[in-house]
Amino acid sequence: MVATSIITGVEITPVAFADPPLLNTVGVHQPFALRAIIRLRTDSGVVGLGETYADTAHLIRLEAAGEAIVGLDVFALNEIRARIDTVLDTLAVTGGDGVAGMITTASTTDRVFSPFEVASLDAAGRILDRPVSDLLGGAVRASVPFSAYLFYKWAGHPGAEPDHWGEALDPAGLVRQARTMIDTYGFTAIKLKGGVFPPAEEVAAIKALRDEFPDLPLRLDPNAAWTVDTSVWVAAELDGIVEYLEDPTPGLDGMSAVAAEAKMPLATNMCVVAFDQLLPSVKKDSVSVVLSDHHYWGGLQRSRLLAAICDTFGLGLSMHSNSHLGVSLAAMVHLAAATPNLTYACDTHWPWKDEDVIRPGVLGIRDGSVTVPTTAGLGVEIDEDALAAMHQQYLDCGIRDRDDTGYMQSIEPGFVNSSPRW
Amino acid sequence: MVATSIITGVEITPVAFADPPLLNTVGVHQPFALRAIIRLRTDSGVVGLGETYADTAHLIRLEAAGEAIVGLDVFALNEIRARIDTVLDTLAVTGGDGVAGMITTASTTDRVFSPFEVASLDAAGRILDRPVSDLLGGAVRASVPFSAYLFYKWAGHPGAEPDHWGEALDPAGLVRQARTMIDTYGFTAIKLKGGVFPPAEEVAAIKALRDEFPDLPLRLDPNAAWTVDTSVWVAAELDGIVEYLEDPTPGLDGMSAVAAEAKMPLATNMCVVAFDQLLPSVKKDSVSVVLSDHHYWGGLQRSRLLAAICDTFGLGLSMHSNSHLGVSLAAMVHLAAATPNLTYACDTHWPWKDEDVIRPGVLGIRDGSVTVPTTAGLGVEIDEDALAAMHQQYLDCGIRDRDDTGYMQSIEPGFVNSSPRW
Repeated sequence: MVATSIITGVEITPVAFADPPLLNTVGVHQPFALRAIIRLRTDSGVVGLGETYADTAHLIRLEAAGEAIVGLDVFALNEIRARIDTVLDTLAVTGGDGVAGMITTASTTDRVFSPFEVASLDAAGRILDRPVSDLLGGAVRASVPFSAYLFYKWAGHPGAEPDHWGEALDPAGLVRQARTMIDTYGFTAIKLKGGVFPPAEEVAAIKALRDEFPDLPLRLDPNAAWTVDTSVWVAAELDGIVEYLEDPTPGLDGMSAVAAEAKMPLATNMCVVAFDQLLPSVKKDSVSVVLSDHHYWGGLQRSRLLAAICDTFGLGLSMHSNSHLGVSLAAMVHLAAATPNLTYACDTHWPWKDEDVIRPGVLGIRDGSVTVPTTAGLGVEIDEDALAAMHQQYLDCGIRDRDDTGYMQSIEPGFVNSSPRW
Repeated sequence: MVATSIITGVEITPVAFADPPLLNTVGVHQPFALRAIIRLRTDSGVVGLGETYADTAHLIRLEAAGEAIVGLDVFALNEIRARIDTVLDTLAVTGGDGVAGMITTASTTDRVFSPFEVASLDAAGRILDRPVSDLLGGAVRASVPFSAYLFYKWAGHPGAEPDHWGEALDPAGLVRQARTMIDTYGFTAIKLKGGVFPPAEEVAAIKALRDEFPDLPLRLDPNAAWTVDTSVWVAAELDGIVEYLEDPTPGLDGMSAVAAEAKMPLATNMCVVAFDQLLPSVKKDSVSVVLSDHHYWGGLQRSRLLAAICDTFGLGLSMHSNSHLGVSLAAMVHLAAATPNLTYACDTHWPWKDEDVIRPGVLGIRDGSVTVPTTAGLGVEIDEDALAAMHQQYLDCGIRDRDDTGYMQSIEPGFVNSSPRW
C-alpha cells in the first residue's frame, strides 16, 4: 500500500461564527451560525477534514458515528456508510436538522455520513497526493461559478450595531446589496431569498434587479411560502425574467400543479431532498431542477450519483447552500468541478461571514468563481487558533440549535411560521 | 504526485477463442468468439488493462478513441469520456455492436469508453497500490456469486468433433448440462438462454430443472422471442418457479403489458441498455430488474451510477454477460463487489471457454463464486504468449464480426431471425 489509511479516531469540534440578521419565511438568522468541524485521523498520521451542522441532536449522532467507524479504511466508503446507518438505529434522539426546519425529509443517515465521507476523501486524497476532484472522476472545469445570494435583512441584530451590509427591506435595498456583492466578488448570477414579504413586493424586487442587472440570470426562492394559485400568479409575472423559480409551494403535488402552469423551470431543495423522493417527483413531474447539497445527500460521491440521476431523468442540477465555512466550500468546489452537468451557478452564503476555520489564501471568489484547488485532498488546512477561538465562541454564544423562528418570535412575538403563508 | 499517470499510448489487440455452438433466438455462436484487449500505458510505465468487443467497426472506433486520449491523466475519467465522445462524432462507421444484434440501442460512446475507463482504473489502482474495488467505494463482499448459464446447444460445430459438453436440445440434455456445470463450479443459481424452441418446450425445461434442483433460483431469457400473449402464458406457467423472467418480449411497451400480468419480476438487458431509456421505463413500469453490463453502460463508475439509479427507483439489479475473457471477469468482479444492491448472482459465459489471455491462478469459480482480488488494480496480468497465440487465432479464423444469424443460415438456410418469433 502507498500508505496505510485506517481510521484511528475522529474529533468533532462545534464552532460558531457571527451571522447577520438574514430574513426568510420561517424567521431570521440568529446572531451566530453553528457548524461542526470533523477531523478524521488515520494510522499514518494523515488528517481528513469534514464540516456539517452542529445542532445538539446532530452532534450526538456525529459522536456515535465517529466512534462506529474507527478501524475502517478511508477507502471503504460503502462500509463506513453501513456502519453509520447501523449505529444510528441505536440512538433515541430526534430533531437537529440544522436547517431551521426547512429541509425536513432528508435522510438522517446521509446527513450524518456526509462529513465523514468528505473527511475520508480528503484523507484519501492526501495519502494519494491527489485532489479530491480526482477521486470524483476528475475536474471538468478549473473554476466553479457561484451566485450572489441576496437576503432581505435588518440593518443589524436588535440591540447590536448595524453590520456593514446595512438594511435591505425593499427593492432599492436589495439592488444596493446586490451591487455591493457583485462589485466585491464579480458574481454573474443572482439569487434572492424570498418568502419574507407579500409576493407582489418580491416580484417588484426581482423586476428591479432585472432593470439594474439586465444580463444576469435571476432566481427567487420563497421556501414554499405560497399557495399554488399565488405561485402560478408569480410565475406569470416573472415569465422570461427568472431562470428558475425555487420551491414556490410545499410538496410534490403542489409543485406539480404549479409546474403544469409555469413557463420557467421549477427548482427545489425542499420537496426532493433524498433519493427516495426522486421516483415520485419524476412520476408527478414536480420539478425540473434539483438543488444538490452534499451535506444531506450523503457526501460527494452520492451527490455525484444524484447528478447522474438528474442527467438521466432530464432534470437540471444546481447547488444549495446553508451558512457554511471553508471546509464545506472546498468540498462544494471539488464536487461542482467534477460534475459535468452542474450548469447553474452554485449558491453560497460565503459573503455573509467574516471569519473562518481554514487558513486564508485559497477559495477566494473572483469574477464570481472559485478556482478549484489542485493540491492534495480538499486543498484547505485548519487554522488551529481560529478553530479554538470559534469553538470558544460556540461555548460562549449560548446557541445550541438553529432556531430562526424562535429568534424571530423573541423579537416579533406575533410571528407565526406557516407554509404556505400567502 | 505518488506517480505520474499520463496516458502515453494505447495498444488494442483483437483476439479469438474457441466457442461452442450455443443456440439463441437469433442463431448460434460461431466457432470463435472475438474480443479486443486494451493495454493503456502511462508515462510512469504502468499498464492498465481493458477488454471489449472486437467487431470491425468497434475496432475502428477503439483505435480513434485510443489516439484521442493520449496525453490525458488516467484519473481524468470525465475528460477521457468527453474526448471519446467528440472523436466518435468524426467517424463515419456503423454497426459493430459485438452482441449479434441483440442489444441495439446502447450508447456508442459508453460502449467505446468502457474498456478505456476500466484500463484507466486498473492503471490508477496499480499506481496507488489499491484494488479497483477501492476506487469504487470499497468491496462490500469478499466473493461474488455467479449463475450457471445454460444453453441449448448442438453436440459440436458442424463438421467438427463434438465438444466435451455434448448436445443439449431438450430438458434432459439441459439437466445433464446443469449437473456438469454445478458439479464443476458449485453454482447456486441457474439461468437458461431460451428463445430457441417453442415456449412450451422451454417451460418444460425450466420445470425439469426445478425438479432436479429444487432449491436453486432459476431464470429464463428468450431474448424477446415471444409476443405479449405468449409471454403472459409463460409467466403464468412459471409463476413461483423463476426468480425473474428476462426480456420475454420486445420493447418497453410490450414489457409493460407483460409486467401488468406477470407475477414475477421482469428483467432486461435489451429494452433498458442506456441511461436515456431509464426514464421511459420507469414511467411505463416496464421492468423491475435491470441487468447491468459495464461493457455498454460506460465502464465501472457509470455502472455504479446505474446501480444507484436502480436503488433509487426501486429496481432490482443483476449483471449480464457476453462471451468474455479474464480481464472482463476481473472488472465484473470488482464492480459487483463494490455494488451493495447487486443482490442476484451475476451471469457469466466463463465455463464455456477453455483458453484465456490472463495468467491463471486468480478468478477461479468455487462454490459458485469468484474471490475478489485484493492486489493492485484489477489483479490480473496478461500472459503474453497466450495473447499472441489468441491474436494469431483471430488473424487465422476469418471471423471479423459476430454474426450468429449468418452462421446459422449457413447451416440451416431457411432460418429467419424474427422477434417476436412465437
